[in-house]
Amino acid sequence: MTNTQITLIQIDNYGPWTVTPEPRREVDLQTLQSRLYADLSQLFGNREGYVFFTRFDNMIAVTNGLDADDHALIQESVSNRYPVTISLGVETDANPTRALGTATEHLQEAGSAQDAARTEVLRGDPLAEADRTDEDVQIAHFDVNDATGKYTDQLNEYDSFIQIEQGYASLMKHMREEHDGLSFFVGGDNIIAVCPAMDGDAYQSAIDHVREDVGVELKVGVGRARTAQAAGMDAKHALETCRHEETTVEFR
Amino acid sequence: MTNTQITLIQIDNYGPWTVTPEPRREVDLQTLQSRLYADLSQLFGNREGYVFFTRFDNMIAVTNGLDADDHALIQESVSNRYPVTISLGVETDANPTRALGTATEHLQEAGSAQDAARTEVLRGDPLAEADRTDEDVQIAHFDVNDATGKYTDQLNEYDSFIQIEQGYASLMKHMREEHDGLSFFVGGDNIIAVCPAMDGDAYQSAIDHVREDVGVELKVGVGRARTAQAAGMDAKHALETCRHEETTVEFR
Amino acid sequence: MTNTQITLIQIDNYGPWTVTPEPRREVDLQTLQSRLYADLSQLFGNREGYVFFTRFDNMIAVTNGLDADDHALIQESVSNRYPVTISLGVETDANPTRALGTATEHLQEAGSAQDAARTEVLRGDPLAEADRTDEDVQIAHFDVNDATGKYTDQLNEYDSFIQIEQGYASLMKHMREEHDGLSFFVGGDNIIAVCPAMDGDAYQSAIDHVREDVGVELKVGVGRARTAQAAGMDAKHALETCRHEETTVEFR
Amino acid sequence: MTNTQITLIQIDNYGPWTVTPEPRREVDLQTLQSRLYADLSQLFGNREGYVFFTRFDNMIAVTNGLDADDHALIQESVSNRYPVTISLGVETDANPTRALGTATEHLQEAGSAQDAARTEVLRGDPLAEADRTDEDVQIAHFDVNDATGKYTDQLNEYDSFIQIEQGYASLMKHMREEHDGLSFFVGGDNIIAVCPAMDGDAYQSAIDHVREDVGVELKVGVGRARTAQAAGMDAKHALETCRHEETTVEFR
Ligand SMILES: Nc1nc2c(ncn2[C@@H]2O[C@H](COP(=O)(O)OP(=O)(O)OP(=O)(O)O)[C@@H](O)[C@H]2O)c(=O)[nH]1
Ligand SMILES: Nc1nc2c(ncn2[C@@H]2O[C@H](COP(=O)(O)OP(=O)(O)OP(=O)(O)O)[C@@H](O)[C@H]2O)c(=O)[nH]1
Ligand SMILES: Nc1nc2c(ncn2[C@@H]2O[C@H](COP(=O)(O)OP(=O)(O)OP(=O)(O)O)[C@@H](O)[C@H]2O)c(=O)[nH]1
Ligand SMILES: Nc1nc2c(ncn2[C@@H]2O[C@H](COP(=O)(O)OP(=O)(O)OP(=O)(O)O)[C@@H](O)[C@H]2O)c(=O)[nH]1
Ligand SMILES: [Ca+2]
Ligand SMILES: [Ca+2]
Ligand SMILES: [Ca+2]
Ligand SMILES: [Ca+2]
Repeated sequence: MTNTQITLIQIDNYGPWTVTPEPRREVDLQTLQSRLYADLSQLFGNREGYVFFTRFDNMIAVTNGLDADDHALIQESVSNRYPVTISLGVETDANPTRALGTATEHLQEAGSAQDAARTEVLRGDPLAEADRTDEDVQIAHFDVNDATGKYTDQLNEYDSFIQIEQGYASLMKHMREEHDGLSFFVGGDNIIAVCPAMDGDAYQSAIDHVREDVGVELKVGVGRARTAQAAGMDAKHALETCRHEETTVEFR
Repeated sequence: MTNTQITLIQIDNYGPWTVTPEPRREVDLQTLQSRLYADLSQLFGNREGYVFFTRFDNMIAVTNGLDADDHALIQESVSNRYPVTISLGVETDANPTRALGTATEHLQEAGSAQDAARTEVLRGDPLAEADRTDEDVQIAHFDVNDATGKYTDQLNEYDSFIQIEQGYASLMKHMREEHDGLSFFVGGDNIIAVCPAMDGDAYQSAIDHVREDVGVELKVGVGRARTAQAAGMDAKHALETCRHEETTVEFR
Repeated sequence: MTNTQITLIQIDNYGPWTVTPEPRREVDLQTLQSRLYADLSQLFGNREGYVFFTRFDNMIAVTNGLDADDHALIQESVSNRYPVTISLGVETDANPTRALGTATEHLQEAGSAQDAARTEVLRGDPLAEADRTDEDVQIAHFDVNDATGKYTDQLNEYDSFIQIEQGYASLMKHMREEHDGLSFFVGGDNIIAVCPAMDGDAYQSAIDHVREDVGVELKVGVGRARTAQAAGMDAKHALETCRHEETTVEFR
Repeated sequence: MTNTQITLIQIDNYGPWTVTPEPRREVDLQTLQSRLYADLSQLFGNREGYVFFTRFDNMIAVTNGLDADDHALIQESVSNRYPVTISLGVETDANPTRALGTATEHLQEAGSAQDAARTEVLRGDPLAEADRTDEDVQIAHFDVNDATGKYTDQLNEYDSFIQIEQGYASLMKHMREEHDGLSFFVGGDNIIAVCPAMDGDAYQSAIDHVREDVGVELKVGVGRARTAQAAGMDAKHALETCRHEETTVEFR
């Protein structure tokens, strides 16, 4: 069984800030958002977590191994370096969607995302060290077969992008609806999914579904470990096995 | 009529680099990609351009006003600061998709995206200063109505994200198929589209299409100008007018 | 004759901010300061200017070619991305120290560096385009001879650093007192000086002074141009000539 | 007694890289150096260490609590994100200068700083967990009295800078020669020193020395702890006590 600790990261009252006193230059907003994401990747990543950019104003992280103090320090470090602050909701569950659901409720109960008085909330119970196991996190790293040969080197870049996006849209819904897994596009032709305990057949049928639904061919490497970082690195090595063995689903 | 100059930015031989000598840590790749995007936003943005992250290994920019030297300097600045290099294809057309198509071909003709010998390509003809007009770029800034009240404060964050993604997937296909416009998710509930000359009815029917297709309600502000930066800022002000007047489509 | 436009960049009310509500973590302050400097290097550098980190809370830039709008945009871009704001004083003079003196007075007259009500000041008259010439900026790039062989590969790193610092302290005072030039350590064994019109003998005697004063041996390349960027690049090429010809002072 | 673990960070073969194939633009070098420093501040700082920029191509860190794996991961993270690589030498001693001396020798014995074949060296023995104590690190945070009133608001910024630099030059030599302490300018009017076990009288006489030598008036807060981060934060709180009590030397 998995036991995934999920943290919801929400920029406080960000919408109003972007247009006060008048609309801020989009290039600066893009710079702010992507650097905040890069910094959070490092702040969580240096503690073995993974962060996904999602909508940038709301990001989702897998944070097994990070306690309340780690979260507080990350929150403080952001407020020391950015013109915006962040709120954090934390929760753990065998089911990643349920974990995120409760993490989200922690923030919603504290007030609206656009409530100027609701800032730097930190709520939820990180998983106690004693309750952690080496199979708490299951990460699946999906990748499109020969994206370079089939898309990048053939189509105009926007049409390549549409193909990848359609594969992603199909996979994200399948994983959410069938397994309560959370799938994130991470650039290129790569999708990383935070999964409950799923077996090889389940992954194969996800891949079959995407091929039948939108014609995009995927392979997947899967890792299980105590932290997102370790599970994710195992998933990458498993994906390399898919490449070398020409297989579709590999665990490691 | 519009005359949009599009630049395709492609990281050279990036796929192989990510797994050589073995898979690199995902947090570092995410940091690299998002910082490169942030830097390109500033490098193009300081010259009045807009960059969209698209797939991160391939990014699309609107670059009216940037000549070949500007492109070369950006290319050099990246190679001075990153472990990877970029190739650039540039082209101008009344039809944004056609401009991107030719820009993409410039790179494809120089070799594969995963050809280790094809690096730092810079091809294509930037628009001559004498041929530029104050209506060359049309930017539409779409935004979801009350995303905070309907999604962010109600659903778990992943389900909010799915709603936004579905709105985006529907709009991106409609704009590409009906108008050859290029639409990009820019975070939160915002989509910025690079459009050919389109009138108010065309925008209204795009919004109607998305509402009927996936139930997501949009508004849009549209700007036209000599550069992406100026058109985009006009679009943002027009969007504020939508907010204050409770209208759906505004030009400025 | 030179005509150097100098901009003083001052973080507003920074001292109190660093200890409110209690002392902020030093690593975050260091990150904030060095990234702000990196961003300003790019923001001014993309417009052909040079910035020097000086004390980090006060930085000095050579900004020939940047007008009031450019300065305002940089100021806005910082406030869009940082928890602090900056004030800017601008002035031009044949004598770099006098230019900086007046630029500094512009801010001092607006209030104290630690006056919470004095924020985002922008004062001074950038040089009119019509008054600019190709010899406005003279940049000298000094470098220690064989720093690697004599220091880095021989001494403990702190003692190497003391040698370089002593060379710098000696040069900075000589240039300030004898020529009203402004010299900045830029890392490694390099010092970049913003100079009035000085000839080869003046540079040779500066180098002689440092050797006699503290035993550190320098060479220097000098460039003159319309902007800091062009003059600085000429200076670097001249320094390469020193290396190849084994000379001590080269102009280009 | 203190037991300070020092890490020397050296960019590999950096001098030649800066001029190959021809001199690189200074603004890009400045950006590269200051961002690398910012990243190292975070990478070491997230593990309770402190980094000082020193010469930027050679930086000095206090790394009690970081083992060989932590060092290797930081080295890898830099190579994943920068066009340059770093070598690391690590050593511990009651005497900070001696620790740095041995750390430096580890790299010197592996080859020259400008040997293209000597890259990513990692040598030295981090302190075993069992040998660590709560008094291993002594950090002194020095600050100039009323720098704003006496310098920043009065003099031109370069002359303010010269005052601060002279105070720093005087302190750095005194601490190195009398106590084998390592003092680093960290911006503004602040100097952080990594010290052996020193008592209040020793700090008072350092402050007296600087006042008599160059007329700059300092105060100092001192902290002792298991890590640089904890000792440094204690030092900052002690400095606040100096401010409130109008004292010159405070321990905490
Ligand atoms: N985020 C992330 N992106 C990656 C990674 N590996 C590859 N990519 C991206 O995927 C793109 C395509 O690379 P590949 O998947 O190696 O190439 P391909 O043509 O699809 O070939 P095969 O997958 O081997 O069939 C690259 O340009 C990267 O953007 C990774 O580990 N993480
Ligand atoms: N990139 C970008 N994102 C923005 C901008 N303005 C708002 N956003 C994002 O959009 C999110 C929602 O903010 P709003 O659109 O103001 O809020 P809303 O609840 O949808 O309200 P209305 O749009 O006014 O109906 C914010 O959290 C931001 O992420 C912008 O100018 N650029
Ligand atoms: N900021 C900056 N630093 C540089 C530049 N070139 C070299 N450096 C720095 O100077 C250090 C020493 O490099 P060099 O000056 O090439 O080496 P050297 O041993 O002194 O040899 P020579 O100067 O050729 O006698 C490098 O590690 C860099 O930190 C430059 O263009 N700009
Ligand atoms: N690196 C760093 N710099 C600081 C810190 N606190 C203040 N500074 C710098 O020091 C400068 C001067 O601030 P203060 O020392 O508070 O002001 P002051 O006028 O000298 O007043 P007193 O020190 O209270 O006598 C600021 O602009 C900052 O650059 C700190 O904790 N770390
Ligand atoms: Ca692939
Ligand atoms: Ca909205
Ligand atoms: Ca040298
Ligand atoms: Ca002070």
